[in-house]
Amino acid sequence: MYKREDTKPVYVSGVKIGGGNVTVQSMCSTKTTDIDKTLAQINSLAAAGCDIVRLAVDSHAAAQAFAEIRKNTDVPLVADIHFDYTLAVKCAQSGADKIRINPGNIGDKENIRQVVSACKERKIPIRIGVNMGSVEKEAERRYGRTPRAMVESAAYHIRLLGEFDFDDIVVSLKASDVVKTVEAYRLFSSLYPYPLHLGITEAGTEYSGIIKSATGIGALLLDGIGDTVRVSLTADPLAEVRAAREILKATGLLKTGIEFISCPTCGRCKIDLINLAKKVEAALCGVDKNIKVAIMGCAVNGPGEARDADIGIAGGSGCAVLFKKGAILRKIKECEIAETLIKEIGDM
Amino acid sequence: MYKREDTKPVYVSGVKIGGGNVTVQSMCSTKTTDIDKTLAQINSLAAAGCDIVRLAVDSHAAAQAFAEIRKNTDVPLVADIHFDYTLAVKCAQSGADKIRINPGNIGDKENIRQVVSACKERKIPIRIGVNMGSVEKEAERRYGRTPRAMVESAAYHIRLLGEFDFDDIVVSLKASDVVKTVEAYRLFSSLYPYPLHLGITEAGTEYSGIIKSATGIGALLLDGIGDTVRVSLTADPLAEVRAAREILKATGLLKTGIEFISCPTCGRCKIDLINLAKKVEAALCGVDKNIKVAIMGCAVNGPGEARDADIGIAGGSGCAVLFKKGAILRKIKECEIAETLIKEIGDM
Repeated sequence: MYKREDTKPVYVSGVKIGGGNVTVQSMCSTKTTDIDKTLAQINSLAAAGCDIVRLAVDSHAAAQAFAEIRKNTDVPLVADIHFDYTLAVKCAQSGADKIRINPGNIGDKENIRQVVSACKERKIPIRIGVNMGSVEKEAERRYGRTPRAMVESAAYHIRLLGEFDFDDIVVSLKASDVVKTVEAYRLFSSLYPYPLHLGITEAGTEYSGIIKSATGIGALLLDGIGDTVRVSLTADPLAEVRAAREILKATGLLKTGIEFISCPTCGRCKIDLINLAKKVEAALCGVDKNIKVAIMGCAVNGPGEARDADIGIAGGSGCAVLFKKGAILRKIKECEIAETLIKEIGDM
Repeated sequence: MYKREDTKPVYVSGVKIGGGNVTVQSMCSTKTTDIDKTLAQINSLAAAGCDIVRLAVDSHAAAQAFAEIRKNTDVPLVADIHFDYTLAVKCAQSGADKIRINPGNIGDKENIRQVVSACKERKIPIRIGVNMGSVEKEAERRYGRTPRAMVESAAYHIRLLGEFDFDDIVVSLKASDVVKTVEAYRLFSSLYPYPLHLGITEAGTEYSGIIKSATGIGALLLDGIGDTVRVSLTADPLAEVRAAREILKATGLLKTGIEFISCPTCGRCKIDLINLAKKVEAALCGVDKNIKVAIMGCAVNGPGEARDADIGIAGGSGCAVLFKKGAILRKIKECEIAETLIKEIGDM
């Protein structure tokens, strides 16, 4: 199996995908022709930790807007194109850092040659984006709507690019079904060294979409599969970036910002832990220290379970103990817990 | 590896854990001694799809309350006990359906014998709950705070029960670190046939806790590991049940209720998809039909990507097409999309 350390890296502007590096992507929900709104969204996505931003380019007006947007930001940009190869050529020439296009869907070989030529000239990669809903007809005829059909579709597009000696390739294999998506990526990574763009397509609203994405993307990342992540949600793209980063944190691939551990409140808990945890999390949102904070309801699981934490509290009856690295510092009153914890973390 | 079909099943009242069956658990956040509140919470958890409910029993007053609660509900109940074996004996005798206790932490062999004897008499299983924060000292000395130490701790407790010929056992191996948790469960399931209670301990608040849990629990379930699930959140236990069920749905282990697929809104989308999806999801919350509903922003991914859906819409410019099983039925105005979809689903 080609694990993420073994994939053949590509470069999207300065950002490496593959060869061990994992990045976060999202896609603008603005109309690309609305240049100001799109630029504002690109900047807010980048500020939230999005490494690469994708824009839909579905017309020549959008391609022109893409060129204009390109001049006004350094954020790595991907042009997302379906069917019309001239849009791909235009975007490559106007500074796209990566093109998402499926070469099997853009007409004859001369069209493919032109896209490849434009990408080679600018040294930019192509992502082949296979979706279960649009697998190649021949693959579907032979294998049905299965993970195997998705992998065969990707193989077909890879071959087409290979005919023009192009292999700066990223591949995605998305289905809305988590189980099939995971199988497709596993199968692909057992066969090809290309870096993988992970995602569950049409995952749904913020609630269930995050759970589907964390389940599927998380499972693959834990297996060493996956080089760039896009969480697809029917929500503000900022929510996609936040969720993608949390998945990377959960899988140990992103170590930044404060990590909270807090216990569910069982019958042993004598303090208002839910509101305490919310309050402390909100107060420390955006604090960029690498600190593990434990907010524990009781002494049974408290300091012991949270010995790894840099700082934490364990609730008692109307009070709590404050501890650092498992060593108890002092007892504090319930009403002082939040402010004490926030102050101590501020001083760290 | 012992996959879930191969685990040795135990029975918690009528509910089977292991041998291929996967269940949802949660734990009351009420004080067990507050009998009315606890009963109300047990009932609302069960109504939300929680198969088994756990109660903290940390005193003889709590054990007495447990006995009283037992008389007033048929929901399978687990007594969660630390250190005091007399509480375990008392709960087993008063109708607990399962005991969670670590036999290595309750004193001498006679104490263990009494607990085992009470459980055997009532034919109820014991869950050994290993947490990274409280691994056995000897295991930690030899292996550090590692997945291996957790598995060795479980092995130690299993041996103690084995001395009294008891193997109606469920095991959990929880850490707040997702990667270590997954490794521990994988290692254990390569060695032992006991059913596994999955969870990430102290996962955190509803947002990050759900992502950690979906990542870790989801990855294990996709590998065929795991027989009962508890999502631990610093939140209302109802949120734990909802999240656990969504994880089971995502991994294909629970097929009930309406499944939504909806696309992220890229620049191609010309309708207000986010609010449409929210509105339809809210209107259909609790509808128990097994229907897959697709809410898609555009024709590029629309009916094709959503061919598997029983019903769906794909947005156009100020309009949408309504489709069933990939076949387009008719065009509808944007302002009529939500009501049309809700009515059509109501008629199905």
